[in-house]
Amino acid sequence: MRITTVGLDADDTLWHNETIFRLTQDRLRGLMAGHAPATVLDAKLAEVEARNLRLDGYGVKGFTLSMIETAMELTGNAPPGRLIADILAAGREMLQEPVEPLPGVEHALAELSQHYRLVLITKGDLLHQEQKLAASGLGDLFAAVEIVSEKDAATYVRVFDRHGTGAAEAVMCGNSMRSDILPALEAGCWGAYVPYSITWAHELADPPADHPRCTELPSISGLPAWVRGLG
Amino acid sequence: MRITTVGLDADDTLWHNETIFRLTQDRLRGLMAGHAPATVLDAKLAEVEARNLRLDGYGVKGFTLSMIETAMELTGNAPPGRLIADILAAGREMLQEPVEPLPGVEHALAELSQHYRLVLITKGDLLHQEQKLAASGLGDLFAAVEIVSEKDAATYVRVFDRHGTGAAEAVMCGNSMRSDILPALEAGCWGAYVPYSITWAHELADPPADHPRCTELPSISGLPAWVRGLG
Repeated sequence: MRITTVGLDADDTLWHNETIFRLTQDRLRGLMAGHAPATVLDAKLAEVEARNLRLDGYGVKGFTLSMIETAMELTGNAPPGRLIADILAAGREMLQEPVEPLPGVEHALAELSQHYRLVLITKGDLLHQEQKLAASGLGDLFAAVEIVSEKDAATYVRVFDRHGTGAAEAVMCGNSMRSDILPALEAGCWGAYVPYSITWAHELADPPADHPRCTELPSISGLPAWVRGLG
Repeated sequence: MRITTVGLDADDTLWHNETIFRLTQDRLRGLMAGHAPATVLDAKLAEVEARNLRLDGYGVKGFTLSMIETAMELTGNAPPGRLIADILAAGREMLQEPVEPLPGVEHALAELSQHYRLVLITKGDLLHQEQKLAASGLGDLFAAVEIVSEKDAATYVRVFDRHGTGAAEAVMCGNSMRSDILPALEAGCWGAYVPYSITWAHELADPPADHPRCTELPSISGLPAWVRGLG
């Protein structure tokens, strides 16, 4: 089995992301404390996000719009004082969070990049993802970057045709079973699932039972050895 | 001179865009009528947009966030009743506007696509641009689509290397002198400037004086003949 290309998810695979969303949601709970208990806020926000996902896609700007919409609904369209301004500010801060690679990432990518073509494959806001990659200092390790609106099997076929030697000779590594692993396996790739401590409900899915081309690794540090072992 | 590839801008080159932003801004003026005269609103919105462009990039979601921020500032953080909800709704409607090709576009692209590789090159929100292309019915005419966060000379070099035979054998056509024409000329492309009736202030720039690789066409209908004439 020849492997030529390794695709890597970005958010929560290379650097923290979901944690920043959760911390911002905690902040929204605080701002809304006089209007709704945390459980009501969480449920309403999840409902608004799900409704908006089709039009907004993934990323901080859509999340900020959904937080504002949630606040309007839960205050009966009478948001007090600085509430909306505070939500806007929280969204802006998310866009300016420092980006630090997760433990083991730099070492694993440096090793992999000596033998394989690395391709970053991520959803989210185009500009923000480019800025995060630049801020991470990891940009030079990647042969290509694909920021996509949806991760399905067709996406992986297209990306690995374009930037590699096809899906069958590619490994996809990421923290989302639903977005990174299952559709990549369907496309014919190998899959390396590296869970993050928390996962957005939207990204949850059951792992495949005993799939011959799939593994779960406790850390990205194990990825180079696993990929090498396939060859 | 051999031309193999034709790059086309999307917004206001293939379909209306700026008009939709202007109509929404008119609507915001109406919503804000009790708080600020139109000239004050326009100036504040332009200021907020310019400030946010670096983080938000181009597109409807960033514009919606800037409208909300403007409303907050001009109401002294006391937005009345449904104001913010109405702005959110106006932004949502922008994302759902029907997409209709501008006059002459379908015919010109159908003709060009028989002889050249067509590449769509556009800024804006990734998902929204993909949705607009799908809704336009023009998707099948393009060999490739590149949604980019910035249009500079390096962008055109990269895109025409990837999807064509290099910038020197490519024509770039668009309505923005600043984003579509000047950087494409700098990259070594030919440039076909097709003005739209209105242009966002941010996209304005002086045309080059007597550039040997640049033309201005009154309509995209003239593009196939001009490109053929280069060969």
